Amino acid sequence: MKPPEMNHPTDLRGMAASVAARVETSMRSDLDAALAGSDPLLVAVLHYALFNGGKRIRPLLTVLCSRCCGRDDESLYLLAAAFEYLHVATLVHDDVIDRAEQRRGKDTVAARYGLSAAILAGDWLHARSMHLIGRLAGADGLEIFCQATASMVNGEFEQLRYVGDVATKEQQYFDVIRQKTGNLIASTCAIGALFAGADETRQKALAAYGDHLGAAFQVVDDLLDFLGDTDSTGKKTGNDFIEGKITLPLLNALNQATEQERQAVQALMEGDRTQPQAYRQLYALIEHHGGFHSAALTARQLVEAALAALAPFSASSPEEENIALLKELAEYVLARKK
Amino acid sequence: MKPPEMNHPTDLRGMAASVAARVETSMRSDLDAALAGSDPLLVAVLHYALFNGGKRIRPLLTVLCSRCCGRDDESLYLLAAAFEYLHVATLVHDDVIDRAEQRRGKDTVAARYGLSAAILAGDWLHARSMHLIGRLAGADGLEIFCQATASMVNGEFEQLRYVGDVATKEQQYFDVIRQKTGNLIASTCAIGALFAGADETRQKALAAYGDHLGAAFQVVDDLLDFLGDTDSTGKKTGNDFIEGKITLPLLNALNQATEQERQAVQALMEGDRTQPQAYRQLYALIEHHGGFHSAALTARQLVEAALAALAPFSASSPEEENIALLKELAEYVLARKK
Repeated sequence: MKPPEMNHPTDLRGMAASVAARVETSMRSDLDAALAGSDPLLVAVLHYALFNGGKRIRPLLTVLCSRCCGRDDESLYLLAAAFEYLHVATLVHDDVIDRAEQRRGKDTVAARYGLSAAILAGDWLHARSMHLIGRLAGADGLEIFCQATASMVNGEFEQLRYVGDVATKEQQYFDVIRQKTGNLIASTCAIGALFAGADETRQKALAAYGDHLGAAFQVVDDLLDFLGDTDSTGKKTGNDFIEGKITLPLLNALNQATEQERQAVQALMEGDRTQPQAYRQLYALIEHHGGFHSAALTARQLVEAALAALAPFSASSPEEENIALLKELAEYVLARKK
Repeated sequence: MKPPEMNHPTDLRGMAASVAARVETSMRSDLDAALAGSDPLLVAVLHYALFNGGKRIRPLLTVLCSRCCGRDDESLYLLAAAFEYLHVATLVHDDVIDRAEQRRGKDTVAARYGLSAAILAGDWLHARSMHLIGRLAGADGLEIFCQATASMVNGEFEQLRYVGDVATKEQQYFDVIRQKTGNLIASTCAIGALFAGADETRQKALAAYGDHLGAAFQVVDDLLDFLGDTDSTGKKTGNDFIEGKITLPLLNALNQATEQERQAVQALMEGDRTQPQAYRQLYALIEHHGGFHSAALTARQLVEAALAALAPFSASSPEEENIALLKELAEYVLARKK
């Protein structure tokens, strides 16, 4: 995996920073309007949750997808903000569920402001994001968005069901990550296209791009949980094992494993998963069977599928530059170290 | 307070039961469609949360408000179901926040299925309710609904701010209950009218009815927390005191109290609020100053204001019968024992 070429003429990093800045400006003025007269603590909690050094990848996708279908106006950045609201709502609720204390090296909302504030702030963000989507992308956009949200919840339930179960199938893993991550990123792209009035072919193409990209993103996330550098990611490695999550590197290894090794993994899953020794044993087994390497190949294939989905777009302006950025973003997802 | 006249020609109880049955049928078929292929645990949690013996007052309001503006078709019952979804989402998240074990004599969702399931199921219901409102009541309906949700969250934050504070003003109490309960009931009524294509006068009239009714409902709730019969309500009395909530009966008493009594209440609030002796002392002080009686009068006045808001409706059909039911419902809210 090589780092993205940041001196490429399309300059993804510069564009990402400029879009993030415009989205953050939209978020601030939307919050000022929506929170006028609100409780100061609610205002503080929402600002703390939203302005947390996030990468703003979802809003960037909305913006690029709308632009490459020919629309780029002020309200696009507010539409994009709605996807960041939902994403942050999800993170805030997830941190309550996982009882997480830290996110990106800072206290989580739940750790800093308590359980009630975290649940309620997440609910506020849900309502605000749906309000904005309904207003800016109409009933069709809202339907795509709400179905993706429902699907994300279902993915979380399915994931809970497979916890610690070494009989989990690769198909089940992909089903979970498509629901947890792929659908929502697909909806981000599809609604950007819908907002720009794109025809169904383009909407579907961008939705497919987002779906594959989201899956690739999650596979890379699952790889980083083993291979990541804590200084870059701000997260400790081995969390998924502690939580009993069976992710692709392990599934790949289990496919190659002997019956004895499979039983050993089952025993590790049923034992004390917080023991460093248990994690080292699992890690060695995955490495022995090439589980990391083949998961990285899968991520590569998913990114190729994302790129292939962009075929209906021509090389002519205004599509060209934005399609190039979408392609570069897909490469970045693959190469990211955090 | 007298019990509602159930043999009144408009027969509120029979109508409420028939509307509840149709709403529940809509809920079941909507869930079947929306949850096709979903995780069995998610399906179980949602059914457990939704079919819990609830009074279905919010859907009844939507239906009556739409009917008295001239629309009554199959999709009305699905729109009404959306309000029950949001209401139940709120209850499920509230029970997580309050760490409540029981609701209406049954385990709460959080107690039965755990914290993760409760938060996620609430999120699912949020998304589904907004999807339905957006589809059936359009962007204007969604905007009213999402603003009411945001306002409810803000009301919860304000309530947290006033916990244990005997300097709370009556105005602050009413501000909290309008936001927590009034706005959402007002939106239930306003969206019913909007759905039926009512003009702005009627929409506003029904919203005002709902706002006053919601406030009355909350005042009665706060009274029942002191005066309720546990066998009828399924709740213990004195919960608000344990949680440090300063409600209207106490505020009324504090308005009449001497400085010494006020300091005694402050000491009770700062002491161990789980002590039965502390609760008895507070109760006696409220009774001594007529705090229960004057709160009951306030509830009566709020119901009168709700009834007065219905003035723009004429006595002619199809309005007559449904307006009569709305009036009867307001009287029921006042007289309810649970």
